[in-house]
Amino acid sequence: MSAGVRSAAPAAGTLYLVPSTLDLDLPEPRAPLANVLPTGVLQRAASLNHWVVENAKSARAFLKRVHEVVPLAQPLQLLDIVELPRPVKGGQPSRPHDLTPLLGPLLAGHDVGLLSEAGMPAVADPGAALVALAHARDVVVRPLVGPSSLLLAIAAAGLNGQSFAFVGYLPVEAAKRSARLRELEALSRRTGQAQWMIETPYRNPALFDSLLDTLALTTRVAIACGLTTPHERVHTDTVAGWRGRRVTIDNRLPAVFGLLAT
Amino acid sequence: MSAGVRSAAPAAGTLYLVPSTLDLDLPEPRAPLANVLPTGVLQRAASLNHWVVENAKSARAFLKRVHEVVPLAQPLQLLDIVELPRPVKGGQPSRPHDLTPLLGPLLAGHDVGLLSEAGMPAVADPGAALVALAHARDVVVRPLVGPSSLLLAIAAAGLNGQSFAFVGYLPVEAAKRSARLRELEALSRRTGQAQWMIETPYRNPALFDSLLDTLALTTRVAIACGLTTPHERVHTDTVAGWRGRRVTIDNRLPAVFGLLAT
Repeated sequence: MSAGVRSAAPAAGTLYLVPSTLDLDLPEPRAPLANVLPTGVLQRAASLNHWVVENAKSARAFLKRVHEVVPLAQPLQLLDIVELPRPVKGGQPSRPHDLTPLLGPLLAGHDVGLLSEAGMPAVADPGAALVALAHARDVVVRPLVGPSSLLLAIAAAGLNGQSFAFVGYLPVEAAKRSARLRELEALSRRTGQAQWMIETPYRNPALFDSLLDTLALTTRVAIACGLTTPHERVHTDTVAGWRGRRVTIDNRLPAVFGLLAT
Repeated sequence: MSAGVRSAAPAAGTLYLVPSTLDLDLPEPRAPLANVLPTGVLQRAASLNHWVVENAKSARAFLKRVHEVVPLAQPLQLLDIVELPRPVKGGQPSRPHDLTPLLGPLLAGHDVGLLSEAGMPAVADPGAALVALAHARDVVVRPLVGPSSLLLAIAAAGLNGQSFAFVGYLPVEAAKRSARLRELEALSRRTGQAQWMIETPYRNPALFDSLLDTLALTTRVAIACGLTTPHERVHTDTVAGWRGRRVTIDNRLPAVFGLLAT
């Protein structure tokens, strides 16, 4: 698009989406930053003085690691680091958080980094509402290249790269989870679309068991754990094949699960 | 997963998914490799002697650019570069290509790089069938970090990062394309899932017009063109808002389009 895009905020800063590593809270050894973030992205991250983050503590830990490779433009303790409002447990808040104050530095002309605890902000992670608000104010949004467990899993699974969906978390309660899996399997069979989901690590084994107990023997199931780390494992097999492998699924590593029914 | 994974090919090499840049055939200036590929990924790419690629000519051009940053382990002309079978125009081949020969170097113990013309192999690009075959032979598949226009667009659009689908290309014929868009809009309205699609650059303007003519005024439409390049533009607005912008959509830049109905 080239002509006629309004620029209501001509002096506004740019909102950079800064991907973080995928090894938060994982056992050592961790992968070097240079394996997962381009030098140009590290340089951009080191240059930013204003941040909106999912979690301030993990943001500081990430920026310390950046500093070891590219010195930060300002000392860590002088950076302006603001947390996104935390999601309300047990449902929607009575009214949405007003994120407008978070745009303050941008509208005042400063560049701002958006950072989540792991991977790409605003994908399977908070941040999309702030990005949407930035577009509503005609603030330029620039996504930087870095790791996304979902994208890496989709590529490495070989299920279907031409048609896929990410559906987030499944219900925790076993019967509801199975019902949802059956629904996703039927959708996949009808459309050929691979269906992808995530789970909190300690529930990985329960979700894996549910996949193997619920789905047809011919349905293909992909699991990607610990992506980009020394613990990385990606594998795809039919339900029948997985049953024959007697696999133990780790309950500490972040994982992404996919299915494709035929 | 940890125990019991069969290793039928214990001496096999690893299949590395190597992301390529997104600036193929784009007007200069191009972004430096260091902005879009981690140093570790460039080092891995430079070390590989065996490649399976979407297009040999663009693979050589990519490897020349890698060589300018990290010298290749072997001269370009000595690399083993094999093309994936080209998709048959106008539909499915009478029987699927047998990709088994492409696994040869892997089964003989060599690491192999899989490379598409732009972005992440096997995502909105060929390669998934080879990845699937690698899993069937218990070959280790390792996805490397790099640019994916789809993932960057999803992050930067702010539509819905918790639930989204990629549906590939839409029908070329206008009436069929509109019908498909109405179907995707209805699905999005019912499920809250953002729907993402791509188009051949020269058809970008036609798809954009179709989005604005077909969808409800309140449906949000995202367009991301020229991602990671100096031509990069990402914007999200309602159909009503886009109509007021009198925007011209570039017909040379690769673009990704998304919609979210409310």
